[in-house]
Amino acid sequence: MNYQRFFSEAIDQLHAERRYRVFADLERIVGAFPRAIWRSGEQAREITVWCSNDYLGMGQHERVISAMQEAAGSMGAGAGGTRNISGTNHPLVELETELADLHGKEAGLVFTSGFISNEASISTIARLLPNCLVLSDELNHASMIEGVRRSGAEKKIFRHNDVGHLESLLKEADHSRAKLIVFESVYSMDGDIAPIEAIADLADKYNAMTYIDEVHAVGMYGARGGGITERDGLAHRIDVIEGTLAKGFGVIGGYITGSSAVIDAVRSYASGFIFTTALPPAIAAAATASIRHLKSSSVERDAQKRQAQQTKDKLLAAGLPVMPSQTHIVPLLVGDPELCKQASDRLLERHGIYIQPINYPTVPRGTERLRITPTPFHHDGLIETLRDALLETWETLGIPFKEADQPQQAKSERVVSLLVPKSGG
Amino acid sequence: MNYQRFFSEAIDQLHAERRYRVFADLERIVGAFPRAIWRSGEQAREITVWCSNDYLGMGQHERVISAMQEAAGSMGAGAGGTRNISGTNHPLVELETELADLHGKEAGLVFTSGFISNEASISTIARLLPNCLVLSDELNHASMIEGVRRSGAEKKIFRHNDVGHLESLLKEADHSRAKLIVFESVYSMDGDIAPIEAIADLADKYNAMTYIDEVHAVGMYGARGGGITERDGLAHRIDVIEGTLAKGFGVIGGYITGSSAVIDAVRSYASGFIFTTALPPAIAAAATASIRHLKSSSVERDAQKRQAQQTKDKLLAAGLPVMPSQTHIVPLLVGDPELCKQASDRLLERHGIYIQPINYPTVPRGTERLRITPTPFHHDGLIETLRDALLETWETLGIPFKEADQPQQAKSERVVSLLVPKSGG
Repeated sequence: MNYQRFFSEAIDQLHAERRYRVFADLERIVGAFPRAIWRSGEQAREITVWCSNDYLGMGQHERVISAMQEAAGSMGAGAGGTRNISGTNHPLVELETELADLHGKEAGLVFTSGFISNEASISTIARLLPNCLVLSDELNHASMIEGVRRSGAEKKIFRHNDVGHLESLLKEADHSRAKLIVFESVYSMDGDIAPIEAIADLADKYNAMTYIDEVHAVGMYGARGGGITERDGLAHRIDVIEGTLAKGFGVIGGYITGSSAVIDAVRSYASGFIFTTALPPAIAAAATASIRHLKSSSVERDAQKRQAQQTKDKLLAAGLPVMPSQTHIVPLLVGDPELCKQASDRLLERHGIYIQPINYPTVPRGTERLRITPTPFHHDGLIETLRDALLETWETLGIPFKEADQPQQAKSERVVSLLVPKSGG
Repeated sequence: MNYQRFFSEAIDQLHAERRYRVFADLERIVGAFPRAIWRSGEQAREITVWCSNDYLGMGQHERVISAMQEAAGSMGAGAGGTRNISGTNHPLVELETELADLHGKEAGLVFTSGFISNEASISTIARLLPNCLVLSDELNHASMIEGVRRSGAEKKIFRHNDVGHLESLLKEADHSRAKLIVFESVYSMDGDIAPIEAIADLADKYNAMTYIDEVHAVGMYGARGGGITERDGLAHRIDVIEGTLAKGFGVIGGYITGSSAVIDAVRSYASGFIFTTALPPAIAAAATASIRHLKSSSVERDAQKRQAQQTKDKLLAAGLPVMPSQTHIVPLLVGDPELCKQASDRLLERHGIYIQPINYPTVPRGTERLRITPTPFHHDGLIETLRDALLETWETLGIPFKEADQPQQAKSERVVSLLVPKSGG
């Protein structure tokens, strides 16, 4: 076994399949959001970011930054330990109270990331429940898939947002058997929304527990930013609401909220929660400031909706292949991995516009796309510049304009059989 | 299935077994480290923390805090995306270069936590290597155990730091088969050190890859803080060196360093790395400031060693049951879970000294202990206060003074069969 050669070849395969990822080295500019300095080799240029998950620009909000700086100044840079061993800091306790209130739940629990919050919570709940059957939407995020896998519980996958299919699976199972339905509210790559009420009805009917991932909705939907479950008045019908502090709220970290008993069980039994250093007080304080601001202010939410709609309208009017989306996410179909990468490169290098290509395995082959996320700070002038740059790129590279055009099937097959789960990376 | 009742009962069981954990709500005080405000109910008191993993107090270092505040002020609170989708910020790129240099490796990769860095890296390496055999020290941290489990690879466990046992396992395996030896340099609960050179020799002899966890050593050992592998001149003999930014460096996050090919493979294939929001620029900048400081300053390391030795000497001289430790960690044997909890409670409430009890499953039953971590800021006066408080507590509660006393076996057995891995939480 030549280890060096083995790993070099694994990388060569990614290059050969055009799946090798280069990370754009960015320095965001507070006060000039969504502008950032992009470094490549010796070059450093100012560009516009059009694919950030800082959906509302809260990461540069004055109150959020001040809260972070003040907490760092008075309490230091880190937490100094795991939650159990000296790491539970007061801002983190306050944050958990704030989150429980946001979703109208008894308790909240913060994790170092949304990934871990899903993985640790789902695996712990499904493992604790005796003989649990997990029912999982086929487009669930990688972190949820990992959580289910790690639980060791039996899993059945229902077709995306297909309530009929979910019911047929529930019907097959014994009524008294423990069941956990895991799904998302907003699916990030397509921007569609789950039929939450219908799923909650089925959960009642078949005595199942429900777990929803609201990471692409918290801060952005509902009168106080409580997500789609708040907007639709359904939060009380879902057992566990999971969210992130890293997208709408602009900081980092993940969380769950639910009844005191469920939250306490995850707190006590989840190794991915127990054996890791707590989030620093400065991060917790920044997140709390962001949540509090968005609980009382709808300015950001309204502006985001307006600019997302503006973007869809202007790109559609120009004949660009905007994929249907019920949310703030604007996917633009390319349908070919090589063209998708070329379009992204051209937009960045020629037009100073950064939109990461989304290729397989994040999305199915043939549906490769540019995923555009307009924020309140992407004003009309920026949208027009984007439209013109996209038109130039589409014409130059010969990308099909209408979504109806049959997407070309990619030819390359994966050589390394390693599973890289889909969604969101 | 009554879900609420089920989870309530799971919590009741923990209470019944005296394993229910209450997190101390702390507010650390910059400039007064290791002092903190402890909140309990309506009460708020200043106490001394004696169990922090901010081993050198770098979390309150002026340069570290300034770097954090400045980066937050200029670049914002969060990263705004995954590493691949707009989240790779310039301070993070600089941090990875800094870490590679720290360990004399070609490349570094930063994760949101040490837990994830172990879990994602070990699982990815062992899964990529065809038919890999993992050889794992029996006292490895929960995150490493999870990484091995998740890889799906065959695992053989060798007795703690037992090179003879490791060799017998290596000998049994085919020479050409891929093998990965995973171990720690400093084992945190006992404070002992692995026979790194002997393990590296075996790796050469039997053509195995080596992966070392240096989380309890980086910043604290070696002329530049590169850990035990630096101190002993062995860094070049280990393939992957993993570390944390959350302990000696005082911030948050984890990392690996190694050859460009291995690091690039983990970067490209590890879902726990790909599908999660990047660390904020302010965190990365703080960590880099801390590492740079500790590369050139040995003041903190020297003072920590001196105060750790002082603590051991003073407690031993008082007849307290200090367990043998080769490192900065000072474990004090109690040998009974209930007494351990009572001792911790009494120290906090009566003496204003916070040392979390370490009970099963973090350590084996019968070896319950207080784990004391002196920092450069625990001066001689604080050590004497600690000694006196421990003496009063030991006498009042009737805890055995000599380590040789046979520890009492705990009677309770776990009812819920859920596996909570041992170590470090």
